[in-house]
Amino acid sequence: MSKSALVILAQGAEEMETVITVDMLRRGGVTVTLAGLEGSSPVLCSRQVTLVPDKSLVEALAEKQQYDAVILPGGLEGSDSLSKSEKVGALLKDHEDNGKIIAAICAAPIAFAAHGVARGRRVTSYPSTKDKLSAGDYTYVEGERVVVDGNVVTSRGPGTAYWFGLTLIELLTGKEKADQVEKGMLISQY
Amino acid sequence: MSKSALVILAQGAEEMETVITVDMLRRGGVTVTLAGLEGSSPVLCSRQVTLVPDKSLVEALAEKQQYDAVILPGGLEGSDSLSKSEKVGALLKDHEDNGKIIAAICAAPIAFAAHGVARGRRVTSYPSTKDKLSAGDYTYVEGERVVVDGNVVTSRGPGTAYWFGLTLIELLTGKEKADQVEKGMLISQY
Repeated sequence: MSKSALVILAQGAEEMETVITVDMLRRGGVTVTLAGLEGSSPVLCSRQVTLVPDKSLVEALAEKQQYDAVILPGGLEGSDSLSKSEKVGALLKDHEDNGKIIAAICAAPIAFAAHGVARGRRVTSYPSTKDKLSAGDYTYVEGERVVVDGNVVTSRGPGTAYWFGLTLIELLTGKEKADQVEKGMLISQY
Repeated sequence: MSKSALVILAQGAEEMETVITVDMLRRGGVTVTLAGLEGSSPVLCSRQVTLVPDKSLVEALAEKQQYDAVILPGGLEGSDSLSKSEKVGALLKDHEDNGKIIAAICAAPIAFAAHGVARGRRVTSYPSTKDKLSAGDYTYVEGERVVVDGNVVTSRGPGTAYWFGLTLIELLTGKEKADQVEKGMLISQY
């Protein structure tokens, strides 16, 4: 059975981080659900691209309580909403406690801090959000596109999203598949 | 007045190529219209992400006959539809004749060949579509992420889309703005 990933889409999410991640994981054979935080209606993203979620987060969790990975795209407004959502907090805690992957890119790692998950881990984020991942709670890493600490995966920004996707594919389905996707996309050998 | 770009969205388009291009150009201060080839309804893309166009292509052209750039995202099914559309053919020819930018990524340069535009130019595309850009009509370039020949811009695939976006920003609004976007996205300095 293929691995499953839940990508949570909030209004104001960074659209390329969202779409690159979903698209790449599907290329990698992962069953991805793009779930709307506030419902199943179309979601206006940070640069005015409108994405239609596959279903609402409530529906996604009614169908399946746990996914192999829960993934948070960035975008400041979207990340703020993810930070404030009790549903997202409970979901991240449940997945962390069960050794599932929790992943966030750009501004979205602030939702980890807001919900008190991934504490003590090595993490990264968009530089301007560094202060919200305070020393003591997190070991903040700079200069790496993607930081993996156990089941916690974080990345820097829109320009690192290809490698965020590749890392998640490798963790979920193996290096061979990640290499295939990299080659098919022409990321390094163009 | 800001520069304008028309991105044409057909069913089966490659969603990350579409969204990266639109998002990056908007970051670069370009006024982008994402126009649905078949209308203004949501469009199912190649990896099952659904994007909502800003308006239909008919509406976009009723509002404004010429844009500073006409841009075609890839995806095989989408590129085939762009290749078959007389409206797209007329639009590309009109923009080429008037020295506007015509740009295509991944499989989409096959639409240039189908409509007989950009003849004699240096172009690139997704490797599997190379044969459709036949010698005699085009000089096919490999090993470069983005090929610029005058007002004709082509690129290789999803993994080169960041650089396709940066090149278009540079051509439309200058190198300084392209550098700002690259830095803000953390493409090379992360």
